[in-house]
Amino acid sequence: MSIELVHDSYGKSAIRLVKVSRHGRRHEVRDLTIDVRLEGAFERAHTEGDNSMILPTDTMKNTVYALAKDHTMDPPEHFALALGEHFLGAAPAATRVHIAMETKPWNRITIGGRGHDHSFSGAGGARRIARISAGRGQQVAIEAGIEGLEVLKSSGSGFDGFLSDRYTTLPQTSERILATSISARWRYVARSESFGPTWHAVRQFLLETFAEHPSRSVQHTLHAMGAAILSQFAEIEEIHLTMPNRHHLLVDLSPFGQSNDDEIWVATDAPYGLIEATLRRADATR
Amino acid sequence: MSIELVHDSYGKSAIRLVKVSRHGRRHEVRDLTIDVRLEGAFERAHTEGDNSMILPTDTMKNTVYALAKDHTMDPPEHFALALGEHFLGAAPAATRVHIAMETKPWNRITIGGRGHDHSFSGAGGARRIARISAGRGQQVAIEAGIEGLEVLKSSGSGFDGFLSDRYTTLPQTSERILATSISARWRYVARSESFGPTWHAVRQFLLETFAEHPSRSVQHTLHAMGAAILSQFAEIEEIHLTMPNRHHLLVDLSPFGQSNDDEIWVATDAPYGLIEATLRRADATR
Amino acid sequence: MSIELVHDSYGKSAIRLVKVSRHGRRHEVRDLTIDVRLEGAFERAHTEGDNSMILPTDTMKNTVYALAKDHTMDPPEHFALALGEHFLGAAPAATRVHIAMETKPWNRITIGGRGHDHSFSGAGGARRIARISAGRGQQVAIEAGIEGLEVLKSSGSGFDGFLSDRYTTLPQTSERILATSISARWRYVARSESFGPTWHAVRQFLLETFAEHPSRSVQHTLHAMGAAILSQFAEIEEIHLTMPNRHHLLVDLSPFGQSNDDEIWVATDAPYGLIEATLRRADATR
Amino acid sequence: MSIELVHDSYGKSAIRLVKVSRHGRRHEVRDLTIDVRLEGAFERAHTEGDNSMILPTDTMKNTVYALAKDHTMDPPEHFALALGEHFLGAAPAATRVHIAMETKPWNRITIGGRGHDHSFSGAGGARRIARISAGRGQQVAIEAGIEGLEVLKSSGSGFDGFLSDRYTTLPQTSERILATSISARWRYVARSESFGPTWHAVRQFLLETFAEHPSRSVQHTLHAMGAAILSQFAEIEEIHLTMPNRHHLLVDLSPFGQSNDDEIWVATDAPYGLIEATLRRADATR
Repeated sequence: MSIELVHDSYGKSAIRLVKVSRHGRRHEVRDLTIDVRLEGAFERAHTEGDNSMILPTDTMKNTVYALAKDHTMDPPEHFALALGEHFLGAAPAATRVHIAMETKPWNRITIGGRGHDHSFSGAGGARRIARISAGRGQQVAIEAGIEGLEVLKSSGSGFDGFLSDRYTTLPQTSERILATSISARWRYVARSESFGPTWHAVRQFLLETFAEHPSRSVQHTLHAMGAAILSQFAEIEEIHLTMPNRHHLLVDLSPFGQSNDDEIWVATDAPYGLIEATLRRADATR
Repeated sequence: MSIELVHDSYGKSAIRLVKVSRHGRRHEVRDLTIDVRLEGAFERAHTEGDNSMILPTDTMKNTVYALAKDHTMDPPEHFALALGEHFLGAAPAATRVHIAMETKPWNRITIGGRGHDHSFSGAGGARRIARISAGRGQQVAIEAGIEGLEVLKSSGSGFDGFLSDRYTTLPQTSERILATSISARWRYVARSESFGPTWHAVRQFLLETFAEHPSRSVQHTLHAMGAAILSQFAEIEEIHLTMPNRHHLLVDLSPFGQSNDDEIWVATDAPYGLIEATLRRADATR
Repeated sequence: MSIELVHDSYGKSAIRLVKVSRHGRRHEVRDLTIDVRLEGAFERAHTEGDNSMILPTDTMKNTVYALAKDHTMDPPEHFALALGEHFLGAAPAATRVHIAMETKPWNRITIGGRGHDHSFSGAGGARRIARISAGRGQQVAIEAGIEGLEVLKSSGSGFDGFLSDRYTTLPQTSERILATSISARWRYVARSESFGPTWHAVRQFLLETFAEHPSRSVQHTLHAMGAAILSQFAEIEEIHLTMPNRHHLLVDLSPFGQSNDDEIWVATDAPYGLIEATLRRADATR
Repeated sequence: MSIELVHDSYGKSAIRLVKVSRHGRRHEVRDLTIDVRLEGAFERAHTEGDNSMILPTDTMKNTVYALAKDHTMDPPEHFALALGEHFLGAAPAATRVHIAMETKPWNRITIGGRGHDHSFSGAGGARRIARISAGRGQQVAIEAGIEGLEVLKSSGSGFDGFLSDRYTTLPQTSERILATSISARWRYVARSESFGPTWHAVRQFLLETFAEHPSRSVQHTLHAMGAAILSQFAEIEEIHLTMPNRHHLLVDLSPFGQSNDDEIWVATDAPYGLIEATLRRADATR
């Protein structure tokens, strides 16, 4: 019997990096968690235990810290591109490198209306994602994303006219709570100097579209959000959205002689609906 | 041999409540997770399986929803007081009731500088805690708190002059990253109409004190923060603070021929220092 | 500008099902967490808010419980196949259905060497995965897997002869702790009556190969484990393995005048190496 | 205004220690997570930033590793006692030291009925706890415990005859699923050479009592379990048990024309009942 190594990759995950940049008394803090992953001609490592083409994952970690000294993390996409280029050089057997970064946001602590020079509080909320994937002699794929963008609307969302069968007990509704935690990933057409402003603008467009769209389903709103991004940002050619439906159930207060006009709800974690889709500009290059 | 039931309690935890209040087109959302717990003369339930004095925890859950219909959650402390009073009445065997509430903050989505009427995004960051503990014929203890207030300062923090022994390898330092996730609980002197504004003011004082205090240790800063609260807020008689020391380690870049002037750090999760203390106004009633 | 819906899917996740089967006084317990997901011609739901082809995810949940009444969960793969077939019938717009199941194992509590009739303790450790993916008029893909199989070997593992560059500081080693949490997924050639015995046999082969393989790297051992499964089980045509390298670092005790002959280690969570590969029988059908 | 430092403590948490002991080719692995905490006269550190009496938490970590070299972790209680004694000596300002240890269990991988010399798999399930608390010139409190012991019984559990009010909708039942994750802590009368065998015997008694007790409530079974331990083990003087009620809800299949004779259940996470009690031998010393 013959066995084929169909696919393999290896790398270092969860490299924790905090960089403090000083501009006189004013400090900037960048807080990143970084994954490095290589694909390539590593078959003999698997089959023979031959490590001669394996750049250790410990070296990947060291390299991230060493390059962090000389590169800016603003925007993180540029640092990811620099890391990708470096690792293709450092590991001749690699045919492709993937870099993924999650930025934890910190806000300056505000005192008397002014941001403190070197003290910060955790911003919480959604995290910023930056990813690149680079092969040899190919265009680099640059992706950005947002993870854990929690939203809820208490009106403007219904779900009716759906397919029913003998197992359907869900009532039609024209008014419900719609709550989700948005995960988005989008691919840029090209390298840009404005990844930072674009990220913040995408975040705002996602929020506004969610808020204002008259929702007939999660699918309906998800598509509206994705389409809004592709319509607005020529530099983005594809977007993937994942939106779990965090169901809120109306409490039956009638046993206690009370009405409940869409007022008292139970938030539930499980089970949850899970909706995802990828939208692409029809003229995109791939 | 004789066995004594030294202590017991029971209740319902993680009751998830979302209340939507409508003021015309303008909605308010309150998102709470509530725990109810009773102590009292429940020994025969333990020893004999006699449930006649046991108010079911399912009833506790129902009661939270039913009372939520008729009470405001703003501030949550008042709703906690109402629940406490109710359960002492509903469970004659109970001698003490504990109510704990955690509020998940939602912000209005802002469009064109104006908060949307019924669409919200998760605020992330620290959560607000409200707790009451009430016995029969005793003063009610009212506590508030903040959980998960992440802060970091990249200057103004040292640690030196400490006790050394043969197992000490830590170098003295006058400059390090100080990072923690503050957990605070404080006890109010009395019921008040301003629990909400006080909570926000306490949060701001904790942040400001953390930012501006010239720290010689976590203990030093923790005490300064607690003392600032007790000095500033006459309505608070005791405060407990817990501050894990989320160590940031300076990366040794010398193998790569690079210097590292407090610039490149590794954030670590484990192990972590854990510092906690309770401060009380000397004239407090207990 | 034209926007294309490249891909979409929807479904219900985390459906929690416990089935108690009674054989006289002897009970069997099956504890499953189930995900249902559909792909197909749902574009108008996205673009128009037309729900007429959408089977609600609430109906999916109901269906899982209703069919659970009449089907056995032993093996879970058969229940997954039944669910898949049902949903292709219930949702005419669906072109593909995915069912995933995770089984939480419970052991009988043993008293005097005999398993109790109706009392169980959590088995902990690895969870069993079963997944099917079915299209219309196509062969059904049946996958099984194991998640969270933690293993550690304190000898028989080295890592040397690797590629070095200016950022490499890792020493060569012929003896280290190798620890990981194995995640495996394998695809069956065909439907079988022996999915249960095969699963347990695969688990045992993974453990034995990990234990006895003289490891020169995680890649080396991962490949040996995958090859062992494909060699041993003709009913399996492809296997994917993911193995994080949970690094254990030797503590430097020399400052305390102590030696450390591979005896005292720090277990670390982050960063971690991440190694994954897919192996396929060369004569596999796809 | 005068502010009093009512209570304070500090220490190091989550010290991760793996010790490999070699007996020829046969290895033993001990995998511990350790917390060290001191209380005492540390007021000037808080108020003045005077660190001269502060033993750094980094030194605590070093000390755990250094002492681990020369001490056995079998049983962990003895290592905890040694650490406690050491830290009272090393930190003259400390009046009390607390050591807590959690042991992660590893089983030998079995091949052909024989345990492998140096390869192990994660045992999962409940973790073993050992804790000591020592003051100067006082008896040391030695506690052991078990965390996360999951159990479920599908018969022999009811809940009826309870207190009802206008908010009670729960039906009486003489047959339900009772499921929980037991957390137990018990205090030993004195130091012993048999902490290990006792721990395993306590675990077995907890399981057997849970299995065989005709339960009228969680309180009823919890008390029976605690009483069984105190009756059986003269070396234990007090036990604390915490048992969340992981509710399983019977699915209503009647809309689908099906009966459900205690067969199809939904496992739920929230909300959950929470029952806890402390039992003490009436002749215990405190």
